[in-house]
Amino acid sequence: MASTHYCPTDRVHYTWDTGNEPLLTVADGDTVVFETRDVFDDQLGPDSDTSALAGVDWERVYPLAGPVYVEGAEPGDTLAVELVDLHTKGWGWTAILPGFGLLSEDFSEPYLRIFDLSRGDMTQFREDISIPLTPFMGTMGVCPAGAAAQSIMPPGTFGGNMDTRQLVKGTTLFLPVQVEGALFSTGDAHACQGDGEICVTGLEAPMYAVMRFHVQKGRTIPAPQYRTAPGPLTPAVNYGAFYGTTGVGGDLYAAAQDATRAMIAHLGETYGLSREDAYVLCSLVVDLKISEIVDAGQYIVSAVLPESIFLGV
Amino acid sequence: MASTHYCPTDRVHYTWDTGNEPLLTVADGDTVVFETRDVFDDQLGPDSDTSALAGVDWERVYPLAGPVYVEGAEPGDTLAVELVDLHTKGWGWTAILPGFGLLSEDFSEPYLRIFDLSRGDMTQFREDISIPLTPFMGTMGVCPAGAAAQSIMPPGTFGGNMDTRQLVKGTTLFLPVQVEGALFSTGDAHACQGDGEICVTGLEAPMYAVMRFHVQKGRTIPAPQYRTAPGPLTPAVNYGAFYGTTGVGGDLYAAAQDATRAMIAHLGETYGLSREDAYVLCSLVVDLKISEIVDAGQYIVSAVLPESIFLGV
Repeated sequence: MASTHYCPTDRVHYTWDTGNEPLLTVADGDTVVFETRDVFDDQLGPDSDTSALAGVDWERVYPLAGPVYVEGAEPGDTLAVELVDLHTKGWGWTAILPGFGLLSEDFSEPYLRIFDLSRGDMTQFREDISIPLTPFMGTMGVCPAGAAAQSIMPPGTFGGNMDTRQLVKGTTLFLPVQVEGALFSTGDAHACQGDGEICVTGLEAPMYAVMRFHVQKGRTIPAPQYRTAPGPLTPAVNYGAFYGTTGVGGDLYAAAQDATRAMIAHLGETYGLSREDAYVLCSLVVDLKISEIVDAGQYIVSAVLPESIFLGV
Repeated sequence: MASTHYCPTDRVHYTWDTGNEPLLTVADGDTVVFETRDVFDDQLGPDSDTSALAGVDWERVYPLAGPVYVEGAEPGDTLAVELVDLHTKGWGWTAILPGFGLLSEDFSEPYLRIFDLSRGDMTQFREDISIPLTPFMGTMGVCPAGAAAQSIMPPGTFGGNMDTRQLVKGTTLFLPVQVEGALFSTGDAHACQGDGEICVTGLEAPMYAVMRFHVQKGRTIPAPQYRTAPGPLTPAVNYGAFYGTTGVGGDLYAAAQDATRAMIAHLGETYGLSREDAYVLCSLVVDLKISEIVDAGQYIVSAVLPESIFLGV
């Protein structure tokens, strides 16, 4: 019979390493209730302000829960991770961190916003701007083959710091197993985030996450894949219009930057947001789409804003 | 009082050129009913097969209707193009064209599919695969400043060959005016297409398109922007699950290729599609999203398939 396990917050690991000792060993079909620290390892709190960012110990970013050893999982198999439930612990934060983010050239000063998540379904960005919460784990991965003190920040074909907003409750994530037992870990939860994670932080939050593990023997995939629950991808914002800005050019990264710059200008002109708040809001709710990638080397990236966030009050 | 004009198919132009003679002159607030040729200028027909691609005269691609001179539009203004209605003329085609497309290295042979669009709301890709029709104009643009026999294929900050699927009925497109009168043109209509236009063709189709023009004096934008009608971005496929594949790496283009290759493999293994049909189907219904663009130089592009296309029969 399948069991349910609890993975507490008292032991974490900060790197991918094949030598990390499993915290739990689970069978195919078992469920794990994870409790996770936020990406800054509880160094910020609900009362922090921007000055707190200066004191952050960067050796402590990306604390991960796990690893979980899944019995029967071997290299060449696929680990299916069913996302059964996710909910926050009542608060979260987002920040501009100098040197990081899609527009690191444009934003050189640190900036921190704290959010009350106690309502569960939404939070106020401003009194007239309501952001729906769509929580997911920013980081979920199996241990990379041969990993030794490997940094968590870059994702890879093993998953890891995927920051992929579709990985919400109801979605199943498929990961290519690279070491015996898979050695699955998770952390870096986001209460919400748009496609791209534009400013480098989502709505970072401590989280409870319930996951069920299945081993797909002999199914080999080249990189993570996922299947959502039936229904729209962005149900919480589907009743309003969407506003899109574009970037056009021969480099997708620069086009994404240009689309974001245009969206920041739009948010300032139309809604009176400061540049910092506009940039952060982009990271939380704006989706980056590759509109076209085939036209004579000139590509279009769209940044798409759900206007329903302005109707919620 | 605002007028309605008709722009017929008998005169087209094949390049952006400030010397193109306006076919119509319209006032702020006027409406134009465009009738457009398909992107290959009627060189294919409902009975064509793959052999017809060899005989295509490439000098005749991208026939555009227009230009339309909009009174009062000057450089520095924005032209708002309200997409009032779009409908096909009953048939369309899609093709793999050697040397073009996101996976041009992987697909070296031409391939043509013809589709019956007479039902209006959907077409059959296979007897068990129904594709919803979401028609839009692949190309809508104002004449670039200084354009002289400029190729239509590459889009630019003037718009043009945007291939952006959100530009459906109900959306308003905003274009930065670059020459007096704006000189708006359109063509290259698609009965449907996913974000990215993966294989280089959408569901190419002759089209009727009704557009209303407004001049926004003194509003300057850096590149095209758009606002959709209220409601979900992909309403026709929102009742099923979505399956996502990913590409991970330091180059967004290569990551988009890898995500697409994984999707083609998934479509073959799961639904028995040939590689060619899978590639074409990706172009028609799969959306490319930038899932994250900020994590230590390792980006994730998702290719997202709406599974409801397999439930429609």
